[in-house]
Amino acid sequence: MPPRYRSSRCRLPWLLLLLQALFLSRAFFAFPGARLTYFSSELYPVFQDVNHMVIFGFGFFLMVLRRYGFSSTGFNFLLVVLGVQCSVLVQDLLDLLGIQYSELGVESLAGAVMSMTAVVISTGAVLGKANPVQLIVMSLVELIIFHVSRCINSTFLQVPQNLTLMHVHLFGAYFGLAVTSRFPEPPPGLDKNRSTPKSELLSVLGTVFVWMFWPSFNSILAESKWEAVLNTYLALAVSAVAAFMLSALTSKDGKFRMAHIHSAVLAGGVTMSSTAEIIQHPWIAMILGLLGSVISILGSHCLQRCFNPPLKLQDTSGVHFTFGLPAVLGAVAAVLLQVVERGIVQQWSDLSSLGFLIFIEVGAFCQTISTALITGLITGFILNIKLLKAVHVSKYFDDQFYWEVSFQMISD
Amino acid sequence: MPPRYRSSRCRLPWLLLLLQALFLSRAFFAFPGARLTYFSSELYPVFQDVNHMVIFGFGFFLMVLRRYGFSSTGFNFLLVVLGVQCSVLVQDLLDLLGIQYSELGVESLAGAVMSMTAVVISTGAVLGKANPVQLIVMSLVELIIFHVSRCINSTFLQVPQNLTLMHVHLFGAYFGLAVTSRFPEPPPGLDKNRSTPKSELLSVLGTVFVWMFWPSFNSILAESKWEAVLNTYLALAVSAVAAFMLSALTSKDGKFRMAHIHSAVLAGGVTMSSTAEIIQHPWIAMILGLLGSVISILGSHCLQRCFNPPLKLQDTSGVHFTFGLPAVLGAVAAVLLQVVERGIVQQWSDLSSLGFLIFIEVGAFCQTISTALITGLITGFILNIKLLKAVHVSKYFDDQFYWEVSFQMISD
Amino acid sequence: MPPRYRSSRCRLPWLLLLLQALFLSRAFFAFPGARLTYFSSELYPVFQDVNHMVIFGFGFFLMVLRRYGFSSTGFNFLLVVLGVQCSVLVQDLLDLLGIQYSELGVESLAGAVMSMTAVVISTGAVLGKANPVQLIVMSLVELIIFHVSRCINSTFLQVPQNLTLMHVHLFGAYFGLAVTSRFPEPPPGLDKNRSTPKSELLSVLGTVFVWMFWPSFNSILAESKWEAVLNTYLALAVSAVAAFMLSALTSKDGKFRMAHIHSAVLAGGVTMSSTAEIIQHPWIAMILGLLGSVISILGSHCLQRCFNPPLKLQDTSGVHFTFGLPAVLGAVAAVLLQVVERGIVQQWSDLSSLGFLIFIEVGAFCQTISTALITGLITGFILNIKLLKAVHVSKYFDDQFYWEVSFQMISD
Repeated sequence: MPPRYRSSRCRLPWLLLLLQALFLSRAFFAFPGARLTYFSSELYPVFQDVNHMVIFGFGFFLMVLRRYGFSSTGFNFLLVVLGVQCSVLVQDLLDLLGIQYSELGVESLAGAVMSMTAVVISTGAVLGKANPVQLIVMSLVELIIFHVSRCINSTFLQVPQNLTLMHVHLFGAYFGLAVTSRFPEPPPGLDKNRSTPKSELLSVLGTVFVWMFWPSFNSILAESKWEAVLNTYLALAVSAVAAFMLSALTSKDGKFRMAHIHSAVLAGGVTMSSTAEIIQHPWIAMILGLLGSVISILGSHCLQRCFNPPLKLQDTSGVHFTFGLPAVLGAVAAVLLQVVERGIVQQWSDLSSLGFLIFIEVGAFCQTISTALITGLITGFILNIKLLKAVHVSKYFDDQFYWEVSFQMISD
Repeated sequence: MPPRYRSSRCRLPWLLLLLQALFLSRAFFAFPGARLTYFSSELYPVFQDVNHMVIFGFGFFLMVLRRYGFSSTGFNFLLVVLGVQCSVLVQDLLDLLGIQYSELGVESLAGAVMSMTAVVISTGAVLGKANPVQLIVMSLVELIIFHVSRCINSTFLQVPQNLTLMHVHLFGAYFGLAVTSRFPEPPPGLDKNRSTPKSELLSVLGTVFVWMFWPSFNSILAESKWEAVLNTYLALAVSAVAAFMLSALTSKDGKFRMAHIHSAVLAGGVTMSSTAEIIQHPWIAMILGLLGSVISILGSHCLQRCFNPPLKLQDTSGVHFTFGLPAVLGAVAAVLLQVVERGIVQQWSDLSSLGFLIFIEVGAFCQTISTALITGLITGFILNIKLLKAVHVSKYFDDQFYWEVSFQMISD
Repeated sequence: MPPRYRSSRCRLPWLLLLLQALFLSRAFFAFPGARLTYFSSELYPVFQDVNHMVIFGFGFFLMVLRRYGFSSTGFNFLLVVLGVQCSVLVQDLLDLLGIQYSELGVESLAGAVMSMTAVVISTGAVLGKANPVQLIVMSLVELIIFHVSRCINSTFLQVPQNLTLMHVHLFGAYFGLAVTSRFPEPPPGLDKNRSTPKSELLSVLGTVFVWMFWPSFNSILAESKWEAVLNTYLALAVSAVAAFMLSALTSKDGKFRMAHIHSAVLAGGVTMSSTAEIIQHPWIAMILGLLGSVISILGSHCLQRCFNPPLKLQDTSGVHFTFGLPAVLGAVAAVLLQVVERGIVQQWSDLSSLGFLIFIEVGAFCQTISTALITGLITGFILNIKLLKAVHVSKYFDDQFYWEVSFQMISD
């Protein structure tokens, strides 16, 4: 093995040590006393659900590649524990700068775990192509930019705190796509980026976990919790039915394809992330769940044939159609719903205030997506400089490159 | 592949679309406003437990066949999400007809998920033999009949709402048995209905989940929750010990058999379903757990040798002795316990009221089981008409018939 | 197969029957009425987390050996359900003797499940070497001695009840080590005590579960729950980062080793078990998490090379460095923290009271560890007498010896 690969790996521990020392010193100097915060024992089980979903659910959800099981779960776990600490640190800094007020309670810890979803989704886009050093740099840059983007939305556009967090899927998906566009493509003959029935079965396990805990994810910071739970639950149920329906319709012979089911059952949850709280009639949630599933499966066909090849995009676990498109749908639906609701209340008399509302909402959406794309591209460039020693394409999608795999191939 | 199989599969998406359109239109016209219902944040974690148990636990519990992993979890998932919507719809209709009053809160959603257990158990009986269209038709018919049967019990026999729901295992098991008796038997040489150590290990994972969440299942709608939790927990613990004991006793060489453990550890939970609330001394729960385990393991020996062959029954995952027999035991125990308790209070003076109590309880039990058997037989006939295109016996127990399995066999 | 193996296995059911009859008769005579206890619906989800962690998490955590998957989960499950009943019985007896007051509420049931951790950890040390009869005898003896040791700590040394329970990792690890030192070593050429990628992947699943539920474990009986949750969460996060860092540093080529990650990510939780409640600054928890991880990975190198071979110890799943050393660190840290805190409050004026505090704390620690070692050695001797028919070394680490494994090897 050439020495430059070894040296790349040897750099990782020192990076981790540096980061951990930074988090520790920050905690030493300015951690707000935990003693003063109020502990809501009602929120704790919901916090555990979110924790479960992000660490366990997404870790196993990403386990689709046949030789990349250790790295999928292992690196996801590493990034989440680093990112939660980083997120608390960034919230602290924003507090110090007087921009936001934060205290360390269950809610802010839940917020830190939830904002990790952006990183997890971006990881899905570069799955198997980035080495751990690149992943760590990417996740830290992404987290900081995501918090800054939230700050812009909440200070300049007056979007409530808990709604800015719900742009997390949108941000994660487009940031990940922009980053992955800067990575060299794997050679066409490589068969390590296949899935096997065994890896897919473990991935189903993760998908079911993510699916089940999504109502908790959407409701933990919501004001009207029961509406958020019920709307998310119904949207998820409808999108699961639609996933089976469309998978059978779009494949030859009418067979189901597990990859479709994977991505489309979650579409309802993503679509609901911006709208779960404001929908007042469950049938709207059901229709959005259906549309989310449709957009996800049609997107998977169109994007993989028409959009990705010319742009030389290689979106390993399909985050564009799993999280990106449904999140766009959700954001558009949120604008429409708010405008219609306000319009009905005001009997469409005060059109200028409606226009202002649209401007604010569309502005927040555009700001998030453009920040994600631009900073993602820049991050992609930075990750591929010589210093970070990108992985050679022949080493893509392989556990053996990072782990002492004892004897035989995993899930082969 | 002959065209009639393709056409059978091509019918599925349209059936799903039709059903989903029905649920959507119902939600559009008459969904009770979610805004008015009270959200109990105490019940939400217990609701999530039940959700977990039915979707994840039973999905993996059914994963015993070596080539049927995708279908076991996938179809279970599809049936649950369809069934919950159908169940809400049926409750709505009963509300409309003035028979029952229902509102859409955590409790009624939990009730909808719990009544899906009947369908999941019946699915276990026809596992690998029914195609998705048959499964969907079966589950919708079963759900409607189960709700009607509950209604009869609660209106004519004055059984409390939460106790009528606890007949769910009884109904599911006998309905499933009656349905499966109408399916043609697989040829004797077929080895696809075996389990492998790998499929059994994943099935253990599901079993442990179901086992752990059973106290939540039995207590969520109970009045005296702690008694229901404690009794169920103790019964489950004793039946797990008894499962190991009896498995070693009944197998040659004193080895354990995983199939025994699977079914018998759950027997305690099933037995407690009707009695968890009314038992006042934990030792009674423990004895019932022990008896449940005994009846389940002895049943598995007797039924598979003496009962199933003459009736040409082929109960793929053994729902008769896993859920059916312990549920009968639980129902009998419930009658005995109530009679003895009332008798002690009244000092056995008012024998006519005791007789009336016995009549009511035995009536509810007989009504449930006979409805299940008769409608199950009819459903079995309907499922095997030409229109629904039953699977040929040579295609039984095979994922490849329904899923685009990428390359190699699953868990082979 | 020689008849003495068969006879050994045939003894198991009768032992189980005897024990279950004992528990049942105890429940019959003196189970405190469940009716009177107050049910805390806030604690129930946390109780379920602990239940989850001990039954599911540890069951899969132990699934590292390639041919021992059924036994790892199955026997863990059997021991937990037996042990919880035994634990309730022992608490009852202590209550009867007037030493402790106990009632059967969620908290005491949680305590019973938590004290099972000691048994589960000891099982890890003799994993694959002890037969079920030996495991059951070991776990019952261990549970009784652990309760007696807790009693001594709480009555003579005035340690609070919930802190005595937190010695559970310390006790379990050193008891297990002492027991395993009396078992004959496996022959050097045996390759059944290897792990494969598949068995390690299932073990990761268990590890992630244990990791996630540790905050619930440390906080369920704590007075200031939020501090316990937050400190444990931070310590776990830091120790996970440190695990990856040290694993890459200590292995050749800078690759990660899954066995390191397994043990070191949990070190933070173990270290926090004695200190989670009393730490007032989160940075102390973070440093302890870091030190726990360091001590665990360095320990795994030193112990396996220098300490185990001369003592002829064979610690199958490395409980010494996973649970033993971090627990010692935690106990030492608890003493230091309490002394420093009390010293600062009293401005180091009342040195005799400080000395008394140190005496008490160190006394409790030494009492626990020496009781564990001495009784563990004695138990190890007892387990290897002829009566209990120890497994021959050639049959170590093999499911086929205990289970009717249907056809092919598990995870091979």
